Amino acid sequence: MANNSDRFVNQIADINSDYTQWYTDVCLKSELCDYGPVKGTMVFRPYGYAIWELIQAEADKRFKAQGVKNAYFPMLIPQSFLMREAEHVEGFAPEVATVTHVGDTELSEKLVLRPTSETVIGNMYSKWIGSYRDLPLKLNQWANVVRWEKTTRPFLRTSEFLWQEGHTAFASAEEANADALTMLKVYKELANEVLALPVLTGKKSEKEKFAGAVATYGMEAMMKDGKSLQSGTTHYLGENFAKAFDIKFLDKDGTHKYAYQASWGISTRLIGAIIMAHGDERGLCLPPPVAPVQAVIIPIGSAKNPEVGERAEQIAKALENAGVRVTVDNRDQSPGFKFNHWELRGVPVRLELGARDIASGVMTVCRRDTAEKFTMPLDGIVGGVTELLAKIKTNMFEKAEAFTKSHIVPVKTLDEMQAALDGGNFCDAYWCGDRECEDKIKQLYSASSRVFNADQSDAHEHTCVCCGKKAKHRIYFARAY
Amino acid sequence: MANNSDRFVNQIADINSDYTQWYTDVCLKSELCDYGPVKGTMVFRPYGYAIWELIQAEADKRFKAQGVKNAYFPMLIPQSFLMREAEHVEGFAPEVATVTHVGDTELSEKLVLRPTSETVIGNMYSKWIGSYRDLPLKLNQWANVVRWEKTTRPFLRTSEFLWQEGHTAFASAEEANADALTMLKVYKELANEVLALPVLTGKKSEKEKFAGAVATYGMEAMMKDGKSLQSGTTHYLGENFAKAFDIKFLDKDGTHKYAYQASWGISTRLIGAIIMAHGDERGLCLPPPVAPVQAVIIPIGSAKNPEVGERAEQIAKALENAGVRVTVDNRDQSPGFKFNHWELRGVPVRLELGARDIASGVMTVCRRDTAEKFTMPLDGIVGGVTELLAKIKTNMFEKAEAFTKSHIVPVKTLDEMQAALDGGNFCDAYWCGDRECEDKIKQLYSASSRVFNADQSDAHEHTCVCCGKKAKHRIYFARAY
Repeated sequence: MANNSDRFVNQIADINSDYTQWYTDVCLKSELCDYGPVKGTMVFRPYGYAIWELIQAEADKRFKAQGVKNAYFPMLIPQSFLMREAEHVEGFAPEVATVTHVGDTELSEKLVLRPTSETVIGNMYSKWIGSYRDLPLKLNQWANVVRWEKTTRPFLRTSEFLWQEGHTAFASAEEANADALTMLKVYKELANEVLALPVLTGKKSEKEKFAGAVATYGMEAMMKDGKSLQSGTTHYLGENFAKAFDIKFLDKDGTHKYAYQASWGISTRLIGAIIMAHGDERGLCLPPPVAPVQAVIIPIGSAKNPEVGERAEQIAKALENAGVRVTVDNRDQSPGFKFNHWELRGVPVRLELGARDIASGVMTVCRRDTAEKFTMPLDGIVGGVTELLAKIKTNMFEKAEAFTKSHIVPVKTLDEMQAALDGGNFCDAYWCGDRECEDKIKQLYSASSRVFNADQSDAHEHTCVCCGKKAKHRIYFARAY
Repeated sequence: MANNSDRFVNQIADINSDYTQWYTDVCLKSELCDYGPVKGTMVFRPYGYAIWELIQAEADKRFKAQGVKNAYFPMLIPQSFLMREAEHVEGFAPEVATVTHVGDTELSEKLVLRPTSETVIGNMYSKWIGSYRDLPLKLNQWANVVRWEKTTRPFLRTSEFLWQEGHTAFASAEEANADALTMLKVYKELANEVLALPVLTGKKSEKEKFAGAVATYGMEAMMKDGKSLQSGTTHYLGENFAKAFDIKFLDKDGTHKYAYQASWGISTRLIGAIIMAHGDERGLCLPPPVAPVQAVIIPIGSAKNPEVGERAEQIAKALENAGVRVTVDNRDQSPGFKFNHWELRGVPVRLELGARDIASGVMTVCRRDTAEKFTMPLDGIVGGVTELLAKIKTNMFEKAEAFTKSHIVPVKTLDEMQAALDGGNFCDAYWCGDRECEDKIKQLYSASSRVFNADQSDAHEHTCVCCGKKAKHRIYFARAY
């Protein structure tokens, strides 16, 4: 039976009045994760890790379709490697964890825990790439990385996180840059189709680019508080790491040339994006493709009526055979407790089955995304649920897309920018391209440039939102996680 | 065209005269792996990592069938955690890598890179387990661990390696010990059915048990040089870590009790076992379930005859649709070069297709395990290849099993033991149970006790192989990796 302590366990802060606490509550109380013993570390509990496994499977499939192969490179990197690319070391050195000892013995060379693997992979590529025949080389690894952040939040920013990092090498600059753009498209499709997440994609400013890249492309997702979450980035690295690690190939023309590279990554941050883009006052709301439980069956009164329990199991079996991830909640708890439990955990479809339902040949269905409740004929329940899951995914994407579109505000002045930001919006702005204006906006409003707008056609007809000089770019500014 | 340098690339040392160099050659030249820049680290190249992914998928399925769920715990553990279990710290402290700094800042508490995760998981279990209702708790993680070894070899012993570690908690000692035994059985099935690897399983001696366990069970596989490779271990931990981390639950009887635990792991060492148990003078020989390429099609004379290439692709498509991992080798190289290339890489089935084969309605088939060459009707090739793959797996297991059985020698004296070990055998011996005798055997012959024999019935009727006192156990001694 549900009691007060059970209700307390499931209680989460109000999403409208305290979004930050709501996020923490959802993370912890839906048992996605917990805090690790070392400050800034987190534990992926089974429910959270299962979401990551589903994201991984979908991403991995798409990478392989692009001719990418998986490999695994060492986590420990000589500290000196980091130094070889000037911008790279400047960007990462302050947050790099360093191994100095093994047992009681001091190491002769300090080792760092990979914050990203351009350097160690660059070192191996220089061994493996000798001829144009060895190109393109497209490898990916699923790995943990360590970046020591001062302020941490589950999934969004933790000292250690899980991600994939793709590292590619090509004979030409064009191919390498095209790879960065292709993978950005792959990420966008993954976000749209698997996470039901609309994203803005485009090039990033010099200030916001990856330390060591020639150009960085990003995908930005709008959270329900109007802030942006950088949800994936791809980098065109030019010859920067090839020069630092001597990655050269003998070209068809008989001359030795540096390889051109790209790298790209998505991480467990995507789980944070799902929580904040789709969640609501009842908790998590999971897009069906990444829901570890897509449908929960709640037998009503099965203690008194064994037929209810039996039918519930039969239906579960039929759904499972059709590829639906389903569970029957047989716990000795009230239906109300169970409804709350699974709603908090964002399960897309709840199916209730009682003796009366069986007699009428129906099941009561409740959608998590809309809270609509209706009946569905037992005959044809498998097709009905499968279709419903597809419909939920589409609806979740459309809802998030409508929200995003309605929260992008064109701004011409700093005052307009402030009003837009304070109202929980992205700013669609024109910008002169100077770092000083980005810094000023950051200082004034804690907002940053996110990605260039896909449409740059009229940029030169406008003036910079900050300094009023002639604009060079149309770009999104937003507060960001 | 094959040239001398290509042949050199594929050349490996003679397995009979230099097994150690043969192993290294197979690892590197079949492109399973490479050395990382930091001493003792290795890179999993795509071919080697693909084998690991196949092992993972098979193992993960079996774990889930046991009710185990995946999670992920932080890699960085407070150094003080290791100290809490006396034997544990003694066993692991000398090989633990320690993080002392982030950027230029010294950490207030030193952190170690997990050598295994009993401590950090114990810490979390103490938070999550409150009542008997929370038990059993059965979690697994796929992760990297770091153990700084002085002497390293690819796959067998590297500073960082990949593994899975299962950590379970129960209300009773019996359940926890049963879990260790059940998982040992799961590992054995995996070894037998997926890796075609016969293994000896049983309890380990006190000397050989895991640091912190009450009892360790191991699975040992015989390599072709007669040495043993510990290929998986399961541990009954009793209340040791529960006491160190205060993992208590309120039992049905209203009293608080410590939980009983087990843990179990297999690692990328299994790839080393595959190489050394099945490999031969031509290189790797992969069991079909973990072969990234199960069948390679080599078109003969396709440059002159486009039909050959087309038919090869058609057959590949048909095999792929039947779930066979197949590739067509269309490279501009001689057939001999290609044969050598794929034999070195251990691909179970080679299919050759030329104009004459097509005219006769057959394909030439070559088994990697037996080197038999025969023709198979094109009509029905899919069924033929599928059956052949199953037959190869069975044959590989039977061959390895016969080899293992014929290399286990009963020994009554130390002289017999030395002769058996020098002849590349395991010793089936009786032992008094004293650590001194194990130490002496280690010192004299570099051999160690591996696992207790499944049959202990007549142990008391014999005398210790070393000291001649009354025996307590029947146990295998062997040189080991």
